[in-house]
Amino acid sequence: MEEQIDSVGKAFVDHYYHLFDNNRPAMSSLYQPTSMLTFEGQKLLGVEDIITKLTQLPFDQCRHVISTVDSQPASVTGGIVVFVSGSLQLPGENHPLQFSQMFHLSPTPQGNFFVLNDIFRLNY
Amino acid sequence: MEEQIDSVGKAFVDHYYHLFDNNRPAMSSLYQPTSMLTFEGQKLLGVEDIITKLTQLPFDQCRHVISTVDSQPASVTGGIVVFVSGSLQLPGENHPLQFSQMFHLSPTPQGNFFVLNDIFRLNY
Repeated sequence: MEEQIDSVGKAFVDHYYHLFDNNRPAMSSLYQPTSMLTFEGQKLLGVEDIITKLTQLPFDQCRHVISTVDSQPASVTGGIVVFVSGSLQLPGENHPLQFSQMFHLSPTPQGNFFVLNDIFRLNY
Repeated sequence: MEEQIDSVGKAFVDHYYHLFDNNRPAMSSLYQPTSMLTFEGQKLLGVEDIITKLTQLPFDQCRHVISTVDSQPASVTGGIVVFVSGSLQLPGENHPLQFSQMFHLSPTPQGNFFVLNDIFRLNY
């Protein structure tokens, strides 16, 4: 069970940042109308507002490099919390930016997960 | 509602780090048997193992300084996720250590919250 949670968390993280770095509009598949994103303190609710924010960030290309992924079961209802640390390389920047991000994944009736909670912070 | 979530998150964070810095054994009041802590990748389950870990960290005194607190409602059942960034000053260390930590707070029948999920990472 514990290993299963870890592998779900890692698979989600790989998928999330792969889409972020290669096809940001396709991240709409990860969210639902109840999804929340807090990005550097700015609160967004629902697929449309979240994807608008993510696709309008002031850089077109980026590359996330993941340092750590920690996952735990979030409840008896099958949710998972995932905590990520890593770095973000932006075009024209010599030094990558360190970040931390947490996700609360909620199960769907189809047996997948969607992102219910998403909180992102750069680490200064 | 949103402001209420924020103030619950901030009040919890103040309380948590006040106990951590001043009376670590009393942190047992924050956890329950189903609580999970992942501390720098080490997984602990339940009040006893969590408090043993926290009280046996290789420093007696410490001081947390909080930089950011982001909170979101975690579900329709009244949970809250809280994401914290800050720094940790240890005795004899010139430079504070940057850290990030997330909590998933779950409501109790008495109207309080306990820490269901707790994940801590230093930011290198």
